[in-house]
Amino acid sequence: MRQFVTELTELQNKLLEMGGLVETAVRSSTRSLVDRDEALARTVWDIEDRINRMDIDIDEFATRLLATQQPVARDLRFLTAAIKINTDLERMGDLAINIAQRSLSLIRRALVKPLIDIPHMSRIVESMVHKSLDSFVQRDADLAQSVLLSDDEVDDLKNAVYKELLELTEQGKAPAAAAFDLMFVAHNLERIADHATNIAEDVLFLVKGIDVRHHHLA
Amino acid sequence: MRQFVTELTELQNKLLEMGGLVETAVRSSTRSLVDRDEALARTVWDIEDRINRMDIDIDEFATRLLATQQPVARDLRFLTAAIKINTDLERMGDLAINIAQRSLSLIRRALVKPLIDIPHMSRIVESMVHKSLDSFVQRDADLAQSVLLSDDEVDDLKNAVYKELLELTEQGKAPAAAAFDLMFVAHNLERIADHATNIAEDVLFLVKGIDVRHHHLA
Repeated sequence: MRQFVTELTELQNKLLEMGGLVETAVRSSTRSLVDRDEALARTVWDIEDRINRMDIDIDEFATRLLATQQPVARDLRFLTAAIKINTDLERMGDLAINIAQRSLSLIRRALVKPLIDIPHMSRIVESMVHKSLDSFVQRDADLAQSVLLSDDEVDDLKNAVYKELLELTEQGKAPAAAAFDLMFVAHNLERIADHATNIAEDVLFLVKGIDVRHHHLA
Repeated sequence: MRQFVTELTELQNKLLEMGGLVETAVRSSTRSLVDRDEALARTVWDIEDRINRMDIDIDEFATRLLATQQPVARDLRFLTAAIKINTDLERMGDLAINIAQRSLSLIRRALVKPLIDIPHMSRIVESMVHKSLDSFVQRDADLAQSVLLSDDEVDDLKNAVYKELLELTEQGKAPAAAAFDLMFVAHNLERIADHATNIAEDVLFLVKGIDVRHHHLA
């Protein structure tokens, strides 16, 4: 039993480490865009490689714990949550790659406009990733709840970015190709925020037993 | 034990039913765009509501089986795969909603161009959803493999749609707002294809024990 507790802690630490890599991937991908730094954009592929290796490792570790420890109740919920969180983190890595690809494409073109909203979005999203994992490790429902609120803020920012880029394109002030790329960057940031929100929802279910997925069903 | 076999079959049937709803959601969302049928677009919300209810139901059912049956080896892998597949299907429902939203926005505007690639993409994607679940139920590795090949086809179609819409916008032949909407439709179809691919990869792992996620690590 004591060994199982140690193993659950190890699993948690692996997820925290993976979350740290995801934060770095997100930060580097948007930072490369703002600083027009191609070398920084390229580092995202190495980070994603490490995220993918951790995905496989964590999946195997959690499944082995399910098989050997035969957990019930809270521990079982914890392990199934860990498997889901692992998948969410892996997808975030893919999305950071999408941003890095757009960044490489944008760096080669003229600057559309000073980028203000996108780095702002990125900072909120990085913080959401961090908080969602902290809320999991600390079983902190209030912290998980704060992630849900940030998600609304990210959605609003994304809509503002879309609207502005659309206007610039229609007025001939931005080339369509660059505007498309920037919209996809905002879109991918929003999707990363959605995955952090999934994690926070899993935590709320784990801690409070309340299912906050599909709010509108309530 | 016999009861457990029955329950696993019941779980499979629930996933098949959910997959059927997802196919309908995808078909209705793109069909509403092609036929400019607002009422059809609105049905997607009802379907997604049912998908969300099934998501919660299946998640609880699978977790309960994990707790009460304490499965090992193959049955355990089957149950963890079912939990992941359930999540993929639920996300596909969200993506169909995204398409229906863009469809409502596009119906209100002038037609950009005859839509050929998008309904073509949609048919491939619906078939991928179907085949991925069939491959799961039948433990059919060849069928799962065919889903991975279709994913490449969908990516190529998406890139062709992007390129064409970008050219039309730059030549002033398509309004930027409509072009953005259509690109997002193609983008969401591609993401649904990615989720079907995730399912096929889970099936290959389940059947052959080969981890085909992150191919490039091989």
